[in-house]
Amino acid sequence: MASEAYDDLLDRYERISNIRSAAGVLSWDQEVMMPDGGTPARSAQRSALSATSHELLVEEDMEETLGEAESADLTDEQAAVVREIRRQYDRAARVPTELVAEISQTTSEALPVWKEAKAEDDFETFAPVLEDLLDLKREYAEHIDSSRPPYEVLFEDYEPYLGLDTAERILDRLREELVPLIDDVGESDVELAQPFTGTFDADAQEALARDALDTLGYDWDRGRLDTAPHPFSTGTQFDARVTTRFDEEDPLGALTSTIHEFGHATYTLGLPDEEYGSPLGESRNLSVHESQSRLWENHVGRSQPFWSLFLPTIKERFSGLGDVTARDAYEAANRVYDDNLIRVEADELTYHMHIVLRFEIERALIEGDLDVREVPQAWNDKMDEYLGIRPDTDAEGCLQDIHWSHGSFGYFPTYSLGSVLAAQLYASADEAIDDLDGDIESGEFDTLHAWLTANVHSHGQRHTTPDLIEEATGEAFTADYFLDHAAEKYGALYEL
Amino acid sequence: MASEAYDDLLDRYERISNIRSAAGVLSWDQEVMMPDGGTPARSAQRSALSATSHELLVEEDMEETLGEAESADLTDEQAAVVREIRRQYDRAARVPTELVAEISQTTSEALPVWKEAKAEDDFETFAPVLEDLLDLKREYAEHIDSSRPPYEVLFEDYEPYLGLDTAERILDRLREELVPLIDDVGESDVELAQPFTGTFDADAQEALARDALDTLGYDWDRGRLDTAPHPFSTGTQFDARVTTRFDEEDPLGALTSTIHEFGHATYTLGLPDEEYGSPLGESRNLSVHESQSRLWENHVGRSQPFWSLFLPTIKERFSGLGDVTARDAYEAANRVYDDNLIRVEADELTYHMHIVLRFEIERALIEGDLDVREVPQAWNDKMDEYLGIRPDTDAEGCLQDIHWSHGSFGYFPTYSLGSVLAAQLYASADEAIDDLDGDIESGEFDTLHAWLTANVHSHGQRHTTPDLIEEATGEAFTADYFLDHAAEKYGALYEL
Repeated sequence: MASEAYDDLLDRYERISNIRSAAGVLSWDQEVMMPDGGTPARSAQRSALSATSHELLVEEDMEETLGEAESADLTDEQAAVVREIRRQYDRAARVPTELVAEISQTTSEALPVWKEAKAEDDFETFAPVLEDLLDLKREYAEHIDSSRPPYEVLFEDYEPYLGLDTAERILDRLREELVPLIDDVGESDVELAQPFTGTFDADAQEALARDALDTLGYDWDRGRLDTAPHPFSTGTQFDARVTTRFDEEDPLGALTSTIHEFGHATYTLGLPDEEYGSPLGESRNLSVHESQSRLWENHVGRSQPFWSLFLPTIKERFSGLGDVTARDAYEAANRVYDDNLIRVEADELTYHMHIVLRFEIERALIEGDLDVREVPQAWNDKMDEYLGIRPDTDAEGCLQDIHWSHGSFGYFPTYSLGSVLAAQLYASADEAIDDLDGDIESGEFDTLHAWLTANVHSHGQRHTTPDLIEEATGEAFTADYFLDHAAEKYGALYEL
Repeated sequence: MASEAYDDLLDRYERISNIRSAAGVLSWDQEVMMPDGGTPARSAQRSALSATSHELLVEEDMEETLGEAESADLTDEQAAVVREIRRQYDRAARVPTELVAEISQTTSEALPVWKEAKAEDDFETFAPVLEDLLDLKREYAEHIDSSRPPYEVLFEDYEPYLGLDTAERILDRLREELVPLIDDVGESDVELAQPFTGTFDADAQEALARDALDTLGYDWDRGRLDTAPHPFSTGTQFDARVTTRFDEEDPLGALTSTIHEFGHATYTLGLPDEEYGSPLGESRNLSVHESQSRLWENHVGRSQPFWSLFLPTIKERFSGLGDVTARDAYEAANRVYDDNLIRVEADELTYHMHIVLRFEIERALIEGDLDVREVPQAWNDKMDEYLGIRPDTDAEGCLQDIHWSHGSFGYFPTYSLGSVLAAQLYASADEAIDDLDGDIESGEFDTLHAWLTANVHSHGQRHTTPDLIEEATGEAFTADYFLDHAAEKYGALYEL
């Protein structure tokens, strides 16, 4: 039972959504295709699109239209649409345009400062910029909801429904249970196989990445694979693209990253075509998105059945691997690197300690419990505490990630939440599918795709995150499945 | 002495201009990169951008802002900016939004009908669609200016300042003087050399196209080369890209087309950086744009000095060309094909007859002097009259070009006007530059680039077309230079 106001709202949102996805195409092009000289025009084009979509969202009569739509007689799906547009509207309308512009301006200026500081290993030059960004984002959070702690408010930009208390509960458990597990792994005498040594030609690696996408069932009619310095996936249900990068010393790196981005793309491609331009045709949020990339990366791409299936393809692409067994490859894909300082190179276990550390530091920064100048020390101490290693430089310590220079505080936790959710979803899929391991080993991925599409992708933003998890898995969000998976898998691998 | 209204106007236009160039990136991506499945989302994104830029242009208070800016104390450059925005505003504001939407809808539907009709050689299925488009465009012209003939009004969408009378005068002279010249060429006993026979690998052709762009001075930091089914160039002064396509039987085709698109890109790249987002940073119009592509294609790329310079590079890319002389290559690049039915494959002379024919037919259609059903007969009769050949099918006759299915009536003449203008501009550059032939033969293109930038590119839309021509060449637009060039060059080649 739709109302005129509802239809009007949906029309307006469709315009906004299209402008945003147009901006996504511009970003993809900038990362993948654009010549360097194009930057000034591209920045201006992106600013114009972003300002325009913002203005359309907070148009004068939007409040009234929303109000009318909210009091109309709506189906559940329509109510979900209105709920999502209301949420976006409230956040956008409460923040003064000048502050949005100032944040945008300051982050634009912060990016090169961060790059330079990282290159020069000079935290001091980045510190004042970080201080400004923290002030601005605190002010931003204050406008949205001055009654709640600012970090809680900021976190909701990336994960609006789970709640910071849930995030904290999950991250606390990861710290409590993974630190001892990682310690045990470090003390284990087991040496996992390392069969992929030597040099692996980038072109052959690209062919292998395409093989992997073929094997997993990527829809090339709605996607493409390119290289980018920082791999990402972007697009819509009609065109969801994947990027990767190649390191000639490390063929598993590109493969894992490709499968990760495939997971993101496959979520996007599973959104319903007929809801394109509506919140029902858009992905839930960062945590759920990351659950899809991690599910494919870790639960499929790092599994024994996958390596039984895929090793012959690797042998076809590269010579000299004749003696390598599927077990060797599985071990290689699951080595725990207890001396790795870099988040994006971390394994399935230590990864979360990199996140917990950032979560604790950025939250303390935003809440005023930590001074910017204390960040390097706090970072290094926590690395020591959680992983028993200490960076020699800030470049491989607190300056390693781009996020803070973007003004993104509250983003990092969604990475771990996504991994944890991946395990919970995978356990449910495994329960529902007759022989999922067997399907994977025989290259039959339709059963998994079908389960994920039916239970996650096809809903778009119909459910809030907790409801989506409850509907898909029959229980509330929990770290149990991830921790069981970790203990079992790495216990077996390292004979703990 | 700027006014507040002027500043406001410029700000608004900058937003519009950025949204349009963002749409340009989306079009490039669609032609060059997008997977087929992406079409529905891309169409929606482009519609959203186009509707948004239209709405921003005709915003309620725009008329008032324009009026205030017009009565302010402006510099010449500022007055030019206001003139150009006024022109766009008037055309946009006079046409009802519903009609714009209907035209857009009808052309979207017409495109597949035309493709199918061309594939099936079935004009009858396209005829009713063409009829609808003609009706809609007549209505469109009527809204803009009901006091003038509709074709005159439509022509100004593509060339706003030269005037249809000038176009007609030029096209009439081309018909009068080129038809007998083409006849003479056809009767000549001279057989021009045809040294590039056999098969030419597409990858090597691509390398050669890059060589050509290097040689001519393409700025790779602000551009790139890709392949597309219908070559085009697009972008801004910061990022102007070129596309081409390869036919393994015809290496000169790709080379010529690459140089043509380079000419377009080099115009775009010559627009002033500091005027990005203003009419002063945008290209004049289609005729002037085509003059730049044709100048490089015909006056440089089909010249004797260019072939002396470039032949060794071709010999490096392809074996078996050891005996070919620069004169042979020059002849091959300038063969007149008196039996060619297809516009985009035509040589420098017969090309214009393809245009004159379309101009006469589309004008008669719009003015109601020709019925849609009579088009095939009229087309074939005119081909016979001007070129002495007759298409066997409508697919290689009146259905060959896409323009009418886009609702573009008045576009075709700008192709010939551009070629004619190219000759006039080239003659002036040749006059101004000490030894232009010598420069070209030695690969020194800076002198030509500098002249074109100073006299054409850097002005953006500061001058109207007639003023730009007058400023650059010291005289009014004339076909004299083109006809002299044609008579002299082809007279010598074919010993007339």
